[in-house]
Amino acid sequence: MLKAQLILGGARSGKSRRALALANDAGSSPVFVATAEAEDNEMAERIVRHKAERGSEWSTLEAPLDLVPALGAAARQGDVCLIDCLTLWLSNLMHQDRDIEAETAKLCDALLNPQIPVILVSNEVGLGLVPDTPLGRAFRDAQGRLNQTVARACDRVEFVAAGLSITLKD
Amino acid sequence: MLKAQLILGGARSGKSRRALALANDAGSSPVFVATAEAEDNEMAERIVRHKAERGSEWSTLEAPLDLVPALGAAARQGDVCLIDCLTLWLSNLMHQDRDIEAETAKLCDALLNPQIPVILVSNEVGLGLVPDTPLGRAFRDAQGRLNQTVARACDRVEFVAAGLSITLKD
Amino acid sequence: MLKAQLILGGARSGKSRRALALANDAGSSPVFVATAEAEDNEMAERIVRHKAERGSEWSTLEAPLDLVPALGAAARQGDVCLIDCLTLWLSNLMHQDRDIEAETAKLCDALLNPQIPVILVSNEVGLGLVPDTPLGRAFRDAQGRLNQTVARACDRVEFVAAGLSITLKD
Repeated sequence: MLKAQLILGGARSGKSRRALALANDAGSSPVFVATAEAEDNEMAERIVRHKAERGSEWSTLEAPLDLVPALGAAARQGDVCLIDCLTLWLSNLMHQDRDIEAETAKLCDALLNPQIPVILVSNEVGLGLVPDTPLGRAFRDAQGRLNQTVARACDRVEFVAAGLSITLKD
Repeated sequence: MLKAQLILGGARSGKSRRALALANDAGSSPVFVATAEAEDNEMAERIVRHKAERGSEWSTLEAPLDLVPALGAAARQGDVCLIDCLTLWLSNLMHQDRDIEAETAKLCDALLNPQIPVILVSNEVGLGLVPDTPLGRAFRDAQGRLNQTVARACDRVEFVAAGLSITLKD
Repeated sequence: MLKAQLILGGARSGKSRRALALANDAGSSPVFVATAEAEDNEMAERIVRHKAERGSEWSTLEAPLDLVPALGAAARQGDVCLIDCLTLWLSNLMHQDRDIEAETAKLCDALLNPQIPVILVSNEVGLGLVPDTPLGRAFRDAQGRLNQTVARACDRVEFVAAGLSITLKD
């Protein structure tokens, strides 16, 4: 049985939908760990809409920063966990000035022996031109490093484009 | 026989050349459906140059907005149709304030049972950082959704990088 | 035996690490051809750090512009050559107003019959939105063309994401 899978892709590539399908296959009481926070009305509406789309078998946890405790909570209430997404998580960590490397190490430790299967969604953001701003470059570099580190900790990695996936690691 | 194929890729990835090769293999009187308009001299020259490069067996139709009638016209004058490209088509639709979802649905309906094989070219644009502007974000999201929807309607999908292709759907 | 391999990928995708591993497998006295110049302290420190990470079996040549003579020099002092990276090389050529097409042709001629195996690293930069500036668009187009041309001259091409590679050409 797979312990941890990473689903990588671009914006609107279908990566979240693919991750949902994998989670629905892997368990009967899936837990959605949302890294997004309902900071404004538009985001709040989007979160409610996505929740409705997932179906009633899903439960939801909000974890903008602390994913390891969320994984523990998910294991107490369900049989598979979907974390969507690491890009927003990274952005939240950077805003809070957390130690990215330390937080990544804690997450990856947990992924090596999770209590329930974990599926993680992340964006690939490094395939355009060099960003104009220092913050843009820092984010792009941090996202690339995070993706590499998490990919090493996962059993399986997929890349999704146009709703179709390629297996990078199996 | 393949009904519809989508060739995805980045800028200057060789996706158009790949699509031309597939079209040349699929028929003897191929029709090029150009979504570009000759709005200035530079573009006009580029269009003329590309036309010459395609060879005399090709005929050309211009269809910046209405692809379904263009597919009908292509079927009356040739035996395979190449639409290049959906990214410019999307941009044209957005400029004219057309209903993207409705236009996409009409195109995909036509792709499920085309009178001649169709090859479509589109850009993947979602693998960089989040765009700075609302318009940039809207375009990126619309392109991602369009690519997913068209990919579902196609029999085959390829991703092209550095002139080399990976099959995403077959 | 492979003559030339191209390792493509995004920023912080793990492409340089992958290329180092391939070079270490291919020879016992590998030569690193650096296209970066130590223009400021930050860059100088990074270059020193990377040099230390490569290990003592590696020697290093600096070649911001003239790769063909560097390949010749590498063949006199080692048994495999790693050029990292073509993106910086292209940027250097553009700054110096060199003829990109002619320089690319010279490089590719050398890659068809190198004296020792060559591994090249390059960025894919065309998978975001259209860049805002003419220079950005020119660079993106030039990089795409360069990648296509070098890929044609290479025996093997890989695409790397999240530290994992897909073979595009073999």
